[in-house]
Amino acid sequence: MTSEPMSVYEAIRMRRDVRAEFTGEQISEEQLTRILEAGHAAPSVGNTQPWDFVVVQKPETLATFAEHVAGCRRDFADSLPEDRRETFDPIKVEGITESGTGIVVTYDPNRGGTHVLGRRTVDDTGVFSAVLAIQNIWLAAVAEGVGVGWVSFYEEQYLTEMMNVPEGVRPIAWLCVGPVSKFQETPDLVRFGWRAGRPLAEAVHRESF
Amino acid sequence: MTSEPMSVYEAIRMRRDVRAEFTGEQISEEQLTRILEAGHAAPSVGNTQPWDFVVVQKPETLATFAEHVAGCRRDFADSLPEDRRETFDPIKVEGITESGTGIVVTYDPNRGGTHVLGRRTVDDTGVFSAVLAIQNIWLAAVAEGVGVGWVSFYEEQYLTEMMNVPEGVRPIAWLCVGPVSKFQETPDLVRFGWRAGRPLAEAVHRESF
Repeated sequence: MTSEPMSVYEAIRMRRDVRAEFTGEQISEEQLTRILEAGHAAPSVGNTQPWDFVVVQKPETLATFAEHVAGCRRDFADSLPEDRRETFDPIKVEGITESGTGIVVTYDPNRGGTHVLGRRTVDDTGVFSAVLAIQNIWLAAVAEGVGVGWVSFYEEQYLTEMMNVPEGVRPIAWLCVGPVSKFQETPDLVRFGWRAGRPLAEAVHRESF
Repeated sequence: MTSEPMSVYEAIRMRRDVRAEFTGEQISEEQLTRILEAGHAAPSVGNTQPWDFVVVQKPETLATFAEHVAGCRRDFADSLPEDRRETFDPIKVEGITESGTGIVVTYDPNRGGTHVLGRRTVDDTGVFSAVLAIQNIWLAAVAEGVGVGWVSFYEEQYLTEMMNVPEGVRPIAWLCVGPVSKFQETPDLVRFGWRAGRPLAEAVHRESF
Protein backbone atom coordinates (compact mmCIF):
# COMPACT_ATOMS: atom_id res chain seq x y z
CA MET A 1 0.00 0.00 0.00
CA THR A 2 2.77 2.44 0.98
CA SER A 3 6.55 2.10 1.08
CA GLU A 4 6.69 2.69 4.85
CA PRO A 5 6.08 -0.38 7.01
CA MET A 6 2.71 -0.14 8.74
CA SER A 7 2.76 0.63 12.45
CA VAL A 8 1.11 -1.57 15.05
CA TYR A 9 -1.51 1.02 15.95
CA GLU A 10 -2.34 1.70 12.30
CA ALA A 11 -2.86 -2.00 11.61
CA ILE A 12 -5.05 -2.37 14.70
CA ARG A 13 -7.12 0.64 13.58
CA MET A 14 -7.48 -0.45 9.92
CA ARG A 15 -8.13 -4.17 10.54
CA ARG A 16 -11.57 -5.37 9.44
CA ASP A 17 -13.33 -8.71 9.28
CA VAL A 18 -13.44 -8.76 5.48
CA ARG A 19 -16.27 -10.30 3.45
CA ALA A 20 -17.06 -8.19 0.38
CA GLU A 21 -13.78 -6.43 -0.46
CA PHE A 22 -11.66 -9.33 -1.77
CA THR A 23 -10.39 -8.50 -5.27
CA GLY A 24 -10.37 -12.09 -6.53
CA GLU A 25 -6.58 -12.08 -6.92
CA GLN A 26 -4.63 -14.61 -4.91
CA ILE A 27 -2.17 -13.70 -2.19
CA SER A 28 1.47 -14.23 -3.25
CA GLU A 29 3.50 -17.08 -1.76
CA GLU A 30 5.89 -14.53 -0.22
CA GLN A 31 3.06 -12.71 1.53
CA LEU A 32 1.50 -15.98 2.64
CA THR A 33 4.80 -17.13 4.15
CA ARG A 34 5.29 -13.82 5.98
CA ILE A 35 1.84 -13.88 7.56
CA LEU A 36 2.18 -17.55 8.55
CA GLU A 37 5.56 -16.72 10.13
CA ALA A 38 3.78 -13.96 12.05
CA GLY A 39 1.23 -16.48 13.32
CA HIS A 40 3.97 -18.92 14.24
CA ALA A 41 5.70 -16.17 16.28
CA ALA A 42 2.72 -15.94 18.65
CA PRO A 43 3.09 -16.68 22.35
CA SER A 44 1.91 -20.11 23.50
CA VAL A 45 1.44 -21.74 26.87
CA GLY A 46 4.56 -23.74 27.78
CA ASN A 47 5.94 -22.85 24.31
CA THR A 48 3.78 -25.66 22.94
CA GLN A 49 2.97 -23.88 19.64
CA PRO A 50 -0.17 -26.05 19.51
CA TRP A 51 -1.39 -24.67 16.18
CA ASP A 52 -1.28 -25.99 12.63
CA PHE A 53 -2.19 -24.06 9.48
CA VAL A 54 -3.90 -25.79 6.58
CA VAL A 55 -3.70 -23.65 3.45
CA VAL A 56 -6.59 -24.33 1.07
CA GLN A 57 -6.56 -22.96 -2.47
CA LYS A 58 -8.24 -25.60 -4.66
CA PRO A 59 -11.34 -23.96 -6.13
CA GLU A 60 -13.45 -27.13 -5.67
CA THR A 61 -12.60 -27.30 -1.98
CA LEU A 62 -13.39 -23.62 -1.48
CA ALA A 63 -16.72 -24.06 -3.30
CA THR A 64 -17.65 -27.12 -1.24
CA PHE A 65 -16.98 -25.33 2.03
CA ALA A 66 -18.86 -22.23 0.84
CA GLU A 67 -21.90 -24.39 0.18
CA HIS A 68 -21.77 -25.85 3.69
CA VAL A 69 -21.49 -22.35 5.14
CA ALA A 70 -24.47 -21.16 3.09
CA GLY A 71 -26.54 -23.87 4.75
CA CYS A 72 -25.46 -22.78 8.24
CA ARG A 73 -26.24 -19.20 7.33
CA ARG A 74 -29.80 -20.19 6.37
CA ASP A 75 -30.21 -22.08 9.66
CA PHE A 76 -29.17 -18.98 11.58
CA ALA A 77 -31.51 -16.74 9.56
CA ASP A 78 -34.38 -19.14 10.24
CA SER A 79 -33.67 -18.97 13.98
CA LEU A 80 -34.11 -15.18 14.11
CA PRO A 81 -37.20 -13.16 15.01
CA GLU A 82 -38.52 -11.28 11.97
CA ASP A 83 -37.01 -7.85 12.65
CA ARG A 84 -33.56 -9.31 13.24
CA ARG A 85 -33.87 -11.49 10.13
CA GLU A 86 -34.49 -8.41 8.02
CA THR A 87 -31.40 -6.73 9.46
CA PHE A 88 -29.39 -9.89 8.89
CA ASP A 89 -30.51 -10.50 5.28
CA PRO A 90 -28.07 -8.16 3.44
CA ILE A 91 -25.07 -9.05 5.63
CA LYS A 92 -22.41 -11.12 3.88
CA VAL A 93 -20.88 -13.69 6.26
CA GLU A 94 -17.99 -15.03 4.18
CA GLY A 95 -15.71 -14.52 1.19
CA ILE A 96 -14.50 -18.09 0.88
CA THR A 97 -14.22 -18.40 -2.90
CA GLU A 98 -13.50 -14.72 -3.66
CA SER A 99 -10.54 -14.57 -1.26
CA GLY A 100 -8.87 -17.44 -3.12
CA THR A 101 -7.22 -18.81 0.02
CA GLY A 102 -8.49 -20.36 3.20
CA ILE A 103 -6.29 -20.91 6.23
CA VAL A 104 -7.75 -23.47 8.61
CA VAL A 105 -6.19 -23.03 12.05
CA THR A 106 -6.22 -26.10 14.28
CA TYR A 107 -5.42 -26.77 17.94
CA ASP A 108 -3.63 -29.89 19.17
CA PRO A 109 -4.08 -30.36 22.96
CA ASN A 110 -1.46 -33.12 23.01
CA ARG A 111 1.37 -30.95 21.75
CA GLY A 112 3.79 -30.64 24.66
CA GLY A 113 2.92 -33.88 26.41
CA THR A 114 1.56 -34.39 29.91
CA HIS A 115 3.27 -31.59 31.82
CA VAL A 116 2.53 -28.37 29.96
CA LEU A 117 4.04 -25.44 31.85
CA GLY A 118 1.17 -23.03 32.58
CA ARG A 119 -1.76 -25.24 31.58
CA ARG A 120 -2.27 -27.12 34.85
CA THR A 121 -4.94 -24.89 36.38
CA VAL A 122 -6.40 -23.27 33.23
CA ASP A 123 -6.58 -25.91 30.51
CA ASP A 124 -8.05 -23.46 27.98
CA THR A 125 -4.75 -21.59 27.79
CA GLY A 126 -3.87 -24.26 25.22
CA VAL A 127 -6.58 -23.38 22.71
CA PHE A 128 -6.19 -19.68 23.57
CA SER A 129 -2.60 -19.90 22.29
CA ALA A 130 -3.85 -20.86 18.83
CA VAL A 131 -6.22 -17.86 18.92
CA LEU A 132 -3.29 -15.51 19.65
CA ALA A 133 -1.65 -16.85 16.48
CA ILE A 134 -4.77 -15.86 14.54
CA GLN A 135 -4.54 -12.24 15.67
CA ASN A 136 -0.87 -12.10 14.64
CA ILE A 137 -1.88 -13.40 11.20
CA TRP A 138 -4.69 -10.86 10.99
CA LEU A 139 -2.51 -7.83 11.79
CA ALA A 140 0.40 -8.95 9.61
CA ALA A 141 -2.07 -9.38 6.74
CA VAL A 142 -3.31 -5.80 7.15
CA ALA A 143 0.30 -4.60 6.92
CA GLU A 144 0.49 -6.47 3.59
CA GLY A 145 -2.72 -4.93 2.24
CA VAL A 146 -4.31 -8.35 2.62
CA GLY A 147 -7.71 -8.88 4.19
CA VAL A 148 -8.75 -11.61 6.59
CA GLY A 149 -12.30 -12.73 7.27
CA TRP A 150 -12.96 -15.25 10.05
CA VAL A 151 -15.80 -17.56 9.04
CA SER A 152 -17.61 -19.23 11.94
CA PHE A 153 -20.80 -20.41 10.19
CA TYR A 154 -19.79 -24.08 9.98
CA GLU A 155 -20.20 -27.35 11.83
CA GLU A 156 -16.93 -28.28 13.49
CA GLN A 157 -17.36 -31.98 12.70
CA TYR A 158 -17.90 -31.18 9.02
CA LEU A 159 -14.69 -29.15 8.80
CA THR A 160 -12.76 -31.82 10.73
CA GLU A 161 -13.72 -34.48 8.20
CA MET A 162 -13.34 -32.25 5.17
CA MET A 163 -9.75 -31.33 6.13
CA ASN A 164 -8.79 -34.80 7.43
CA VAL A 165 -7.94 -33.28 10.80
CA PRO A 166 -6.57 -36.11 12.99
CA GLU A 167 -8.55 -37.38 15.98
CA GLY A 168 -8.01 -35.21 19.05
CA VAL A 169 -7.04 -32.15 17.00
CA ARG A 170 -9.65 -29.42 16.68
CA PRO A 171 -10.17 -26.94 13.82
CA ILE A 172 -10.87 -23.59 15.49
CA ALA A 173 -11.17 -21.19 12.54
CA TRP A 174 -11.47 -20.81 8.79
CA LEU A 175 -9.77 -17.61 7.71
CA CYS A 176 -10.48 -16.19 4.25
CA VAL A 177 -7.25 -14.50 3.19
CA GLY A 178 -6.69 -12.40 0.08
CA PRO A 179 -5.88 -8.99 -1.39
CA VAL A 180 -8.59 -6.36 -0.86
CA SER A 181 -9.72 -3.28 -2.74
CA LYS A 182 -9.93 -1.40 0.56
CA PHE A 183 -10.58 -1.78 4.26
CA GLN A 184 -13.96 -0.38 5.28
CA GLU A 185 -13.78 2.50 7.76
CA THR A 186 -16.68 1.10 9.79
CA PRO A 187 -17.18 -2.59 10.66
CA ASP A 188 -19.90 -4.30 8.60
CA LEU A 189 -22.07 -5.19 11.59
CA VAL A 190 -22.15 -1.52 12.62
CA ARG A 191 -22.76 -0.26 9.04
CA PHE A 192 -25.64 -2.68 8.55
CA GLY A 193 -27.21 -1.84 11.91
CA TRP A 194 -26.72 -5.29 13.42
CA ARG A 195 -24.92 -4.16 16.59
CA ALA A 196 -23.07 -1.00 17.63
CA GLY A 197 -19.96 -1.07 19.77
CA ARG A 198 -19.80 0.18 23.35
CA PRO A 199 -17.39 2.81 24.67
CA LEU A 200 -14.11 1.64 26.17
CA ALA A 201 -14.96 3.35 29.47
CA GLU A 202 -17.74 0.79 30.02
CA ALA A 203 -15.28 -2.07 29.64
CA VAL A 204 -12.64 -0.75 32.05
CA HIS A 205 -12.86 -1.32 35.79
CA ARG A 206 -10.45 -0.31 38.55
CA GLU A 207 -9.11 -2.66 41.23
CA SER A 208 -12.23 -4.86 41.14
CA PHE A 209 -14.89 -5.75 38.59
CA MET B 1 11.96 3.46 22.54
CA THR B 2 12.51 5.26 19.20
CA SER B 3 10.77 8.21 17.63
CA GLU B 4 9.50 6.11 14.71
CA PRO B 5 6.29 4.16 15.35
CA MET B 6 7.03 0.45 15.61
CA SER B 7 5.95 -1.69 12.68
CA VAL B 8 3.64 -4.66 13.00
CA TYR B 9 6.32 -7.16 12.05
CA GLU B 10 8.85 -5.62 14.43
CA ALA B 11 6.39 -5.82 17.34
CA ILE B 12 5.56 -9.43 16.51
CA ARG B 13 9.27 -10.27 16.39
CA MET B 14 10.18 -8.44 19.63
CA ARG B 15 7.19 -9.51 21.73
CA ARG B 16 8.06 -11.69 24.72
CA ASP B 17 6.13 -13.17 27.62
CA VAL B 18 7.86 -11.02 30.22
CA ARG B 19 8.67 -12.15 33.76
CA ALA B 20 12.07 -10.86 34.90
CA GLU B 21 12.57 -7.63 32.93
CA PHE B 22 10.03 -5.30 34.55
CA THR B 23 11.79 -2.15 35.80
CA GLY B 24 9.49 -1.58 38.77
CA GLU B 25 8.20 1.70 37.31
CA GLN B 26 4.49 1.95 36.62
CA ILE B 27 3.03 2.34 33.14
CA SER B 28 1.68 5.87 32.51
CA GLU B 29 -2.07 6.47 32.30
CA GLU B 30 -1.65 7.61 28.68
CA GLN B 31 0.09 4.38 27.71
CA LEU B 32 -2.42 2.30 29.63
CA THR B 33 -5.30 3.99 27.81
CA ARG B 34 -3.69 3.46 24.41
CA ILE B 35 -3.11 -0.24 24.96
CA LEU B 36 -6.62 -0.75 26.34
CA GLU B 37 -7.99 1.06 23.27
CA ALA B 38 -5.96 -1.37 21.16
CA GLY B 39 -7.57 -4.30 22.98
CA HIS B 40 -11.01 -2.77 22.57
CA ALA B 41 -10.41 -2.47 18.79
CA ALA B 42 -10.14 -6.25 18.44
CA PRO B 43 -12.55 -8.20 16.26
CA SER B 44 -15.37 -10.00 18.06
CA VAL B 45 -18.02 -12.46 17.01
CA GLY B 46 -21.25 -10.62 16.19
CA ASN B 47 -19.50 -7.39 17.31
CA THR B 48 -20.29 -8.45 20.89
CA GLN B 49 -17.06 -7.05 22.39
CA PRO B 50 -17.52 -9.60 25.19
CA TRP B 51 -14.40 -8.53 27.13
CA ASP B 52 -13.89 -6.39 30.24
CA PHE B 53 -10.57 -5.14 31.58
CA VAL B 54 -9.98 -4.88 35.31
CA VAL B 55 -6.91 -2.75 36.03
CA VAL B 56 -5.26 -3.69 39.32
CA GLN B 57 -2.55 -1.49 40.83
CA LYS B 58 -3.03 -1.66 44.62
CA PRO B 59 0.17 -3.20 46.02
CA GLU B 60 -1.77 -5.32 48.56
CA THR B 61 -3.91 -6.86 45.83
CA LEU B 62 -0.89 -7.60 43.65
CA ALA B 63 0.89 -9.20 46.63
CA THR B 64 -2.14 -11.34 47.51
CA PHE B 65 -2.45 -12.65 43.98
CA ALA B 66 1.30 -13.28 43.77
CA GLU B 67 1.05 -15.43 46.88
CA HIS B 68 -1.77 -17.50 45.36
CA VAL B 69 0.25 -17.96 42.18
CA ALA B 70 3.31 -19.07 44.18
CA GLY B 71 1.19 -21.88 45.64
CA CYS B 72 0.04 -23.00 42.19
CA ARG B 73 3.64 -22.91 40.99
CA ARG B 74 4.65 -25.25 43.85
CA ASP B 75 1.81 -27.64 42.98
CA PHE B 76 3.01 -27.78 39.38
CA ALA B 77 6.64 -28.33 40.46
CA ASP B 78 5.51 -31.17 42.75
CA SER B 79 3.69 -32.83 39.85
CA LEU B 80 6.83 -33.05 37.70
CA PRO B 81 9.25 -35.96 37.29
CA GLU B 82 12.66 -35.10 38.77
CA ASP B 83 14.48 -34.14 35.57
CA ARG B 84 11.71 -31.79 34.51
CA ARG B 85 11.50 -30.30 37.99
CA GLU B 86 15.17 -29.38 37.85
CA THR B 87 14.67 -27.69 34.49
CA PHE B 88 11.60 -25.88 35.85
CA ASP B 89 13.19 -24.67 39.11
CA PRO B 90 14.96 -21.51 37.84
CA ILE B 91 12.08 -20.45 35.55
CA LYS B 92 10.19 -17.38 36.75
CA VAL B 93 6.46 -17.69 35.99
CA GLU B 94 5.18 -14.21 36.88
CA GLY B 95 6.09 -10.57 37.51
CA ILE B 96 2.89 -9.59 39.31
CA THR B 97 4.26 -7.13 41.87
CA GLU B 98 7.29 -5.92 39.86
CA SER B 99 5.16 -4.98 36.85
CA GLY B 100 3.06 -2.66 39.02
CA THR B 101 -0.10 -3.29 37.01
CA GLY B 102 -2.31 -6.28 36.39
CA ILE B 103 -4.98 -6.35 33.72
CA VAL B 104 -7.54 -9.07 34.32
CA VAL B 105 -9.35 -9.83 31.08
CA THR B 106 -12.81 -11.34 31.43
CA TYR B 107 -15.33 -12.90 29.04
CA ASP B 108 -19.09 -12.37 29.27
CA PRO B 109 -21.01 -15.01 27.24
CA ASN B 110 -24.26 -13.08 27.66
CA ARG B 111 -23.06 -9.94 25.91
CA GLY B 112 -25.06 -9.73 22.71
CA GLY B 113 -28.12 -11.64 23.88
CA THR B 114 -29.58 -14.83 22.46
CA HIS B 115 -28.87 -14.47 18.76
CA VAL B 116 -25.16 -13.78 18.41
CA LEU B 117 -24.26 -13.55 14.73
CA GLY B 118 -21.56 -16.16 14.11
CA ARG B 119 -21.74 -18.02 17.42
CA ARG B 120 -24.54 -20.47 16.61
CA THR B 121 -22.39 -23.40 15.49
CA VAL B 122 -19.10 -22.62 17.26
CA ASP B 123 -19.92 -21.29 20.71
CA ASP B 124 -16.23 -20.82 21.61
CA THR B 125 -15.91 -17.97 19.11
CA GLY B 126 -17.24 -15.88 22.01
CA VAL B 127 -14.35 -16.50 24.38
CA PHE B 128 -11.93 -16.52 21.44
CA SER B 129 -12.91 -12.88 20.79
CA ALA B 130 -11.61 -11.88 24.22
CA VAL B 131 -8.33 -13.67 23.45
CA LEU B 132 -7.93 -11.64 20.24
CA ALA B 133 -8.19 -8.51 22.40
CA ILE B 134 -5.30 -9.80 24.53
CA GLN B 135 -3.02 -10.11 21.51
CA ASN B 136 -3.84 -6.54 20.44
CA ILE B 137 -2.94 -5.37 23.95
CA TRP B 138 0.30 -7.36 23.85
CA LEU B 139 1.50 -5.94 20.53
CA ALA B 140 0.46 -2.37 21.33
CA ALA B 141 2.39 -2.67 24.60
CA VAL B 142 5.56 -3.72 22.76
CA ALA B 143 5.22 -0.64 20.57
CA GLU B 144 5.15 1.42 23.80
CA GLY B 145 8.26 -0.30 25.23
CA VAL B 146 5.95 -1.96 27.74
CA GLY B 147 6.14 -5.64 28.56
CA VAL B 148 3.25 -8.05 29.05
CA GLY B 149 3.43 -11.37 30.88
CA TRP B 150 0.41 -13.67 30.84
CA VAL B 151 0.11 -15.48 34.17
CA SER B 152 -1.83 -18.73 34.07
CA PHE B 153 -0.75 -20.31 37.37
CA TYR B 154 -3.98 -19.56 39.23
CA GLU B 155 -7.28 -21.16 40.15
CA GLU B 156 -10.06 -19.57 38.12
CA GLN B 157 -12.49 -19.62 41.04
CA TYR B 158 -9.97 -17.83 43.25
CA LEU B 159 -9.49 -15.02 40.74
CA THR B 160 -13.25 -14.76 40.17
CA GLU B 161 -13.87 -14.17 43.87
CA MET B 162 -10.85 -11.94 44.36
CA MET B 163 -11.95 -9.59 41.56
CA ASN B 164 -15.68 -9.77 42.32
CA VAL B 165 -16.33 -11.00 38.81
CA PRO B 166 -20.12 -11.37 38.41
CA GLU B 167 -21.73 -14.80 38.07
CA GLY B 168 -21.60 -16.09 34.49
CA VAL B 169 -18.60 -13.92 33.59
CA ARG B 170 -15.24 -15.68 33.36
CA PRO B 171 -11.75 -14.27 34.03
CA ILE B 172 -9.55 -15.65 31.25
CA ALA B 173 -6.18 -14.01 31.91
CA TRP B 174 -4.06 -12.02 34.32
CA LEU B 175 -1.65 -9.85 32.35
CA CYS B 176 1.35 -8.28 34.12
CA VAL B 177 1.92 -4.97 32.35
CA GLY B 178 4.80 -2.56 32.91
CA PRO B 179 7.88 -0.86 31.49
CA VAL B 180 10.79 -3.23 30.81
CA SER B 181 14.56 -2.84 30.71
CA LYS B 182 14.66 -4.89 27.50
CA PHE B 183 12.90 -7.63 25.59
CA GLN B 184 14.88 -10.89 25.61
CA GLU B 185 16.00 -12.06 22.16
CA THR B 186 15.08 -15.67 22.95
CA PRO B 187 11.92 -16.77 24.80
CA ASP B 188 12.54 -17.82 28.43
CA LEU B 189 11.32 -21.38 27.95
CA VAL B 190 13.82 -21.88 25.13
CA ARG B 191 16.69 -20.18 27.01
CA PHE B 192 16.10 -22.32 30.09
CA GLY B 193 15.85 -25.53 28.08
CA TRP B 194 12.19 -26.22 28.90
CA ARG B 195 10.96 -26.60 25.32
CA ALA B 196 12.31 -25.57 21.91
CA GLY B 197 10.08 -24.35 19.13
CA ARG B 198 9.40 -26.29 15.95
CA PRO B 199 9.98 -25.00 12.42
CA LEU B 200 7.09 -23.31 10.63
CA ALA B 201 7.28 -25.89 7.83
CA GLU B 202 6.07 -28.58 10.24
CA ALA B 203 2.99 -26.53 11.08
CA VAL B 204 1.93 -25.77 7.51
CA HIS B 205 -0.13 -28.22 5.46
CA ARG B 206 -1.53 -27.86 1.95
CA GLU B 207 -5.14 -28.51 0.95
CA SER B 208 -5.65 -31.07 3.74
CA PHE B 209 -4.18 -31.72 7.17
